[in-house]
Amino acid sequence: MNKIEHIGIAVKSLDASNELFSKLFNKPHYKMETVESEGVKTSFFKVGENKIELLEATHKDSPIAKFIAKKGEGIHHMAFDVDDIWSEIQRLKKEGFKVLNETPKQGADNKLVAFLHPKSSNGVLIELCQEIKE
Amino acid sequence: MNKIEHIGIAVKSLDASNELFSKLFNKPHYKMETVESEGVKTSFFKVGENKIELLEATHKDSPIAKFIAKKGEGIHHMAFDVDDIWSEIQRLKKEGFKVLNETPKQGADNKLVAFLHPKSSNGVLIELCQEIKE
Repeated sequence: MNKIEHIGIAVKSLDASNELFSKLFNKPHYKMETVESEGVKTSFFKVGENKIELLEATHKDSPIAKFIAKKGEGIHHMAFDVDDIWSEIQRLKKEGFKVLNETPKQGADNKLVAFLHPKSSNGVLIELCQEIKE
Repeated sequence: MNKIEHIGIAVKSLDASNELFSKLFNKPHYKMETVESEGVKTSFFKVGENKIELLEATHKDSPIAKFIAKKGEGIHHMAFDVDDIWSEIQRLKKEGFKVLNETPKQGADNKLVAFLHPKSSNGVLIELCQEIKE
């Protein structure tokens, strides 16, 4: 794991939260992106070497809508940058983590991603991500 | 805000979670510290320029014990490194954030810290921290 790539925060309104986090960081978000396959509209802020990813549900069955219904707005996941997502998936599986995506999938921000189930990692939803290089 | 200083994770057992996160990061924690005034025993891992701080309650009235009773184990707070915590507190107060500690207090890891109420920041408990330089 090279670094925290981003922290994902579930929000009800991306517009309202963009304004709120712009005040917090004293600078605006630098991009927005919709990932239809995941049911999310995202907004990114840069802080040091990390990103903060705000996540709004695009429909009521989105994982973000379900998360907010159950737990309210708040930190949704923590994502780590890895060099080789395939070998990290195998390594963590052997260590006893429950890997939700044994085959990585396309995520936001030009990344291959895979998630670890929070039950196997102290209640924390963990994302592994590897940048897609063409 | 210079960077994410650390992500705080509430855990039931520091011993068990030290083992778990050592497997996740493929390296051991580098220090432990008890902050009696906060009712926490902590353990730190380094990932890139950030730290992961595991937090175990030292008694049943600890904020960490209450958090786990209500929400279960998981991410408890997100801490940002600032150069001047006093001016950031004033700036964020003016922006409408609810500052829980208008006078910063001594935290773990040789830091002056102040918290923002999660109700004013999208359900995220935010800590500001400034390193104490002698």
